[in-house]
Amino acid sequence: MSVALESNAFFWGIEYLATFCCGMCGGLAAVRKGYDIFAILVTTWLTALGGGIIRDVLLGIAPPVGVSDKGLVIVALLASVAVAVCHPEINRLKWSMLSLDALALGLYAVNGTSKAMMYHTSGMTAVFLGMFTALGGGLIRDMFINEVPMVIRDKHWYAVPSAVGCVLTVLVCKGVDAGIVSFPAEVVLDLLIVALMVSMRLVSVIFDIQLPGALVRHNT
Amino acid sequence: MSVALESNAFFWGIEYLATFCCGMCGGLAAVRKGYDIFAILVTTWLTALGGGIIRDVLLGIAPPVGVSDKGLVIVALLASVAVAVCHPEINRLKWSMLSLDALALGLYAVNGTSKAMMYHTSGMTAVFLGMFTALGGGLIRDMFINEVPMVIRDKHWYAVPSAVGCVLTVLVCKGVDAGIVSFPAEVVLDLLIVALMVSMRLVSVIFDIQLPGALVRHNT
Amino acid sequence: MSVALESNAFFWGIEYLATFCCGMCGGLAAVRKGYDIFAILVTTWLTALGGGIIRDVLLGIAPPVGVSDKGLVIVALLASVAVAVCHPEINRLKWSMLSLDALALGLYAVNGTSKAMMYHTSGMTAVFLGMFTALGGGLIRDMFINEVPMVIRDKHWYAVPSAVGCVLTVLVCKGVDAGIVSFPAEVVLDLLIVALMVSMRLVSVIFDIQLPGALVRHNT
Repeated sequence: MSVALESNAFFWGIEYLATFCCGMCGGLAAVRKGYDIFAILVTTWLTALGGGIIRDVLLGIAPPVGVSDKGLVIVALLASVAVAVCHPEINRLKWSMLSLDALALGLYAVNGTSKAMMYHTSGMTAVFLGMFTALGGGLIRDMFINEVPMVIRDKHWYAVPSAVGCVLTVLVCKGVDAGIVSFPAEVVLDLLIVALMVSMRLVSVIFDIQLPGALVRHNT
Repeated sequence: MSVALESNAFFWGIEYLATFCCGMCGGLAAVRKGYDIFAILVTTWLTALGGGIIRDVLLGIAPPVGVSDKGLVIVALLASVAVAVCHPEINRLKWSMLSLDALALGLYAVNGTSKAMMYHTSGMTAVFLGMFTALGGGLIRDMFINEVPMVIRDKHWYAVPSAVGCVLTVLVCKGVDAGIVSFPAEVVLDLLIVALMVSMRLVSVIFDIQLPGALVRHNT
Repeated sequence: MSVALESNAFFWGIEYLATFCCGMCGGLAAVRKGYDIFAILVTTWLTALGGGIIRDVLLGIAPPVGVSDKGLVIVALLASVAVAVCHPEINRLKWSMLSLDALALGLYAVNGTSKAMMYHTSGMTAVFLGMFTALGGGLIRDMFINEVPMVIRDKHWYAVPSAVGCVLTVLVCKGVDAGIVSFPAEVVLDLLIVALMVSMRLVSVIFDIQLPGALVRHNT
């Protein structure tokens, strides 16, 4: 049994692209603050791979892929070099970066949830771990560079699509376990979930849709 | 062998109450900052269950109860809903909240220490893990919302009662292992420890008792 | 098989000295902020032992030495007492502290890397874990007291010597595994690596050598 979206070279390619892009988004934050090259490197790596590290620690997998998977680490390092050299260009690609970051969010959520289900966790635990995978990298980065986490600052939908995607992924995995969903169908469904998450994220940014806060009650 | 204060439905009820209240205290911080509903939810959950997650990670228990125990997660989610709707009322219940938060501190310390002892750690390790359980949730929350941790900001006794409680719990557990303390006696002693911790916390707030800082030496 | 620099009482003595000093550096930050004695104690302990805790969590060792090794914990507590009482004197010993902190950095990097290699991780993973051991304590401390981490703030070489030291240590460990390097030679080589790291750190501070930031391009 394996994670559907890691089943062949094509999906690995997408995952590497997502890691690369997610790392660049993180590295940009460090470049803007005027950090030195090592801090840019660490920030990039934490953003790209921090979520998977949290997931693996909570699943009891040691050492986590973020420090042991050569491919992913090299991609993260390349992203930090790219961002240190090409940051003016990357800064200008606002919408491409936003789309690729949303793609990374989607892939991480689906793959993180599937990996947790592979380790026979309950569906609820898998949803939590999928969300940690998707959101954890940005969270660690912001704690590292001492900012309020983007998942709080960004008023547009960021966590909501990942929650929706993780719940849907659990349903797909349960369908596979029950024999209702075949492996090719799982791949297609997973891709649809990623597409749904990317759409939700982009729609909320384009149309400026925000989550409500706590109930405001004027009689108090 | 089991944790004494989780041995029957009554104690589980108390634990759920403590989790609920601890979560609400955490969620209030997010409401005051004007965060959206998802950030309130995450802050509540981290405050209520973060300490137990740290404890379980350090004990090598995967996945931690904070992402796998349905009851606790549901209680934490209910707390975030409660705080998002009733925050003006909760804000007014200052002393009730303070008392319930102290109760949560006490229960988490005693249960966390007992759980560590169940995994055959040394007494010192159990004290550390009990304190992580009691203080970790608030600590993670404050790192998450980018504030100086309350355990530092709050000048009244907060960490000291938990240290005292954890050390006493280790002594009780060692008594049980040595056959000196029976199970009913353990329950009573654990309850006395919780009561002592709640009293210490409330007394320090009411009479404004603070810990000293580093030695001030005017000749330097 | 064992970690070369923990093979006899002399090296343990050096490790305790490094822990003591690293803890004092951390505690000073808390004293300067006017924290109470408990917060000083926690900050000291986190700085001295936090790196090893991260390493052990990522290696799947439970519970980590930072909460289970009585000697190290006692040394960290002594450091916090020392700093609470003698902070004016310690503040004046600027260069001694800097040297001892560099020594701690070197020892932690070499020992952390060797410990990871002992657990049969790949060389890359061992380099990551060695760097976490060396840099993690200060990182956790700064996240705890809500500051931008020193590894970012300190413009002099701090992370670079630890990266160099970890890579060299992996080479030495691989030499030992291949039968090329004898145990006494490993000890000597490890000591040389520590000396190199201390020199790099001190030279960068004395001659104010800094890492470059992201590429500045004026045509953009």
